[in-house]
Amino acid sequence: MRDFLPAEKARRERVLQRIRSVYRAHGFDEIETPVVEDASRLHAGLGGDNEKLAFAVMKRGLTMDALAEASTPLELADLGLRFDLTVPLARFYASNRGQLPSVFRAIQIAPVWRAERPQKGRYRQFVQCDIDIIGEPGIIAEAELITATAATLDALGVPGCSIRVNDRRLLTAWLGAFEVPESLRPAALISMDKLDKIGLDGVTDELRAIGVARADELFDGVHPALEGEDSWRMLDHAVFADTAAAADLRSLRAAAGEVPLVFDPFLVRGMGYYTGPIFEVAHPDFGYSLGGGGRYDGMIGRFLGTEVPACGFSLGFERLIDLVELGDESDDGAALLYERDADLAAVIALKNALVAEGARVRLLARPKNMKAALEQLEAEGFTRFAVIGRDSAADAGSLDWRRLNDR
Amino acid sequence: MRDFLPAEKARRERVLQRIRSVYRAHGFDEIETPVVEDASRLHAGLGGDNEKLAFAVMKRGLTMDALAEASTPLELADLGLRFDLTVPLARFYASNRGQLPSVFRAIQIAPVWRAERPQKGRYRQFVQCDIDIIGEPGIIAEAELITATAATLDALGVPGCSIRVNDRRLLTAWLGAFEVPESLRPAALISMDKLDKIGLDGVTDELRAIGVARADELFDGVHPALEGEDSWRMLDHAVFADTAAAADLRSLRAAAGEVPLVFDPFLVRGMGYYTGPIFEVAHPDFGYSLGGGGRYDGMIGRFLGTEVPACGFSLGFERLIDLVELGDESDDGAALLYERDADLAAVIALKNALVAEGARVRLLARPKNMKAALEQLEAEGFTRFAVIGRDSAADAGSLDWRRLNDR
Repeated sequence: MRDFLPAEKARRERVLQRIRSVYRAHGFDEIETPVVEDASRLHAGLGGDNEKLAFAVMKRGLTMDALAEASTPLELADLGLRFDLTVPLARFYASNRGQLPSVFRAIQIAPVWRAERPQKGRYRQFVQCDIDIIGEPGIIAEAELITATAATLDALGVPGCSIRVNDRRLLTAWLGAFEVPESLRPAALISMDKLDKIGLDGVTDELRAIGVARADELFDGVHPALEGEDSWRMLDHAVFADTAAAADLRSLRAAAGEVPLVFDPFLVRGMGYYTGPIFEVAHPDFGYSLGGGGRYDGMIGRFLGTEVPACGFSLGFERLIDLVELGDESDDGAALLYERDADLAAVIALKNALVAEGARVRLLARPKNMKAALEQLEAEGFTRFAVIGRDSAADAGSLDWRRLNDR
Repeated sequence: MRDFLPAEKARRERVLQRIRSVYRAHGFDEIETPVVEDASRLHAGLGGDNEKLAFAVMKRGLTMDALAEASTPLELADLGLRFDLTVPLARFYASNRGQLPSVFRAIQIAPVWRAERPQKGRYRQFVQCDIDIIGEPGIIAEAELITATAATLDALGVPGCSIRVNDRRLLTAWLGAFEVPESLRPAALISMDKLDKIGLDGVTDELRAIGVARADELFDGVHPALEGEDSWRMLDHAVFADTAAAADLRSLRAAAGEVPLVFDPFLVRGMGYYTGPIFEVAHPDFGYSLGGGGRYDGMIGRFLGTEVPACGFSLGFERLIDLVELGDESDDGAALLYERDADLAAVIALKNALVAEGARVRLLARPKNMKAALEQLEAEGFTRFAVIGRDSAADAGSLDWRRLNDR
């Protein structure tokens, strides 16, 4: 887990504000849930492999007797840090449904925690930016999610992304058409998800190894990594062409307008809860996705007892932030360097007068090494400075201001 | 712990942005630390009673053998949720000192967790807004903290607050002058801190009971609850008048300018780590403070090994938010009510065109009960609506817009 120093924190906050503002403009509403959830909810089977990575919070007031009586260590925990924002959202919706609109568009911008071994680009605390639409069964929900996400990437100055789409129902139809038994399908999907790493031949070998009889026929007429119009022609494949899922994807493509969607029949997405369209943001410079999502119509019902349609799109903030290009801040940053014998009340009054005029003001005792101090101020984004001594003017306008960048 | 629904979350974010922006204008820089810290740091004796309220995070991969071998439950935890922002700041400064300016002004706006019994107005997850100045030994640091805090309260439309100040050195001098032995002083301060609840006679009784011999003389010439100039006359009391602390408080008062400071010789503040001036925000309508702080010159050194002067001011966001009066949002909120037979791609294109013009746009399938839907939209801050059918205009300007507030 990381500390964020001033420059990085300021950048993160600016980017988060930008994301928040685009999502809001697209009609989504931000909510917040506690960082901890009941351990039983976190371990209800909705989080896939992530459940194993949840940090567990110990019960308060545990006695040595409780330790002796526990039959597993997890019995000592009643809470845990959330590992995603989807399980909390489902719980939130079940708790607060009566106060929410019948179609609810949620923004969640918040940290999650996973006890993974630290590695490059992976952190144990990281921020996710999720939008979800709960209560809308139609493909218009996916269209709103995708266009809002594309608009966000655009506002962040991250060009060149494409959004790859598929549908869980197509994957099911496909495996069904080639008589892959239900029992082998989860393993078959896991293999297909490795396409990037092991190639089409590797996937075929794995499918054969797990017992898929017609593994050699499966990939006739479909091709990984097709782009644009070429990718969409695969929807005419006999297995897909006349399905409701294909019709939905075609509508989605039309509704996305100028957002470039790519049909990728190999797109699987890891989580077991997806039931319909799934999508992923790909960037040409990266081997991993910047985000993804899909429809998960069954999940909310697990908490609520009645079925509620839902779909969501999550952006991985930590991957995104390095790509973002924002314009310069236009702060009027003024540094006041005061001599140690300057009148304290006069220094504070000058500072407050400048703040009232709209400046960001930094006080600094005049240092021996002016050069280093001025360089530091400039690096921190301040643009001008003045020195205040015992006899300086009492109004900010009369000070001898100099620009930091033309010393 | 609480969920925040859209209206409340939007309000909280607006207020936090306002606070952040005033603190930034006053030259402070925001930082962020992970929500968990090493258990050993959280239990190093700097958190006072709050240490006992820390949520403990269990070690990962614990075995039943580890349970059997533990001699206390806390041995099973290596991390904990932070209970304040001061301990993390001290750790942050020790970790990152080389990359920070020699006088470092920190903003931390973040949740903390305490496993308290839930009660009205107290939460187990709550947000604190802290500013701290590290590396400045002079009273100018306190002056900046106090004026920045007062400017924040002002920007939030929370009038009528006063800032009560005292100095730990004055409390020490006072108890010393009346020969209260060192061993009794912590208990004596705890009694004096109860003044609001038990009155001056009650405090005197308690002091007598714990063995303070001259308890009856102690309060000659000082008075609780004096305001304005009257309060400052108490600094002329023989015990205080010629101390360095009194000189500092007088300078501080002059530097605070129009911010009304009150000298309160009974102000104690709970934490043991304060070494100099201490302060608290009082509001006439409330029996509790909205925030407080003080100088804690010894604390950073506990992590760093060398002494570093520091002081800070913390606002309790959960207490503050109910008092805040912000002006209205000026969002252009436009609702598009689409008939179910409207063309999906046309609906999405209209929405995106309105967003591009700067509106916040909410899509809604045209409901049977228009009245209720329009009321809900108005309550959510939307100001205008139009209905889109199969044959509606394809440009937003030609739609039949109506204002939500003059139906």
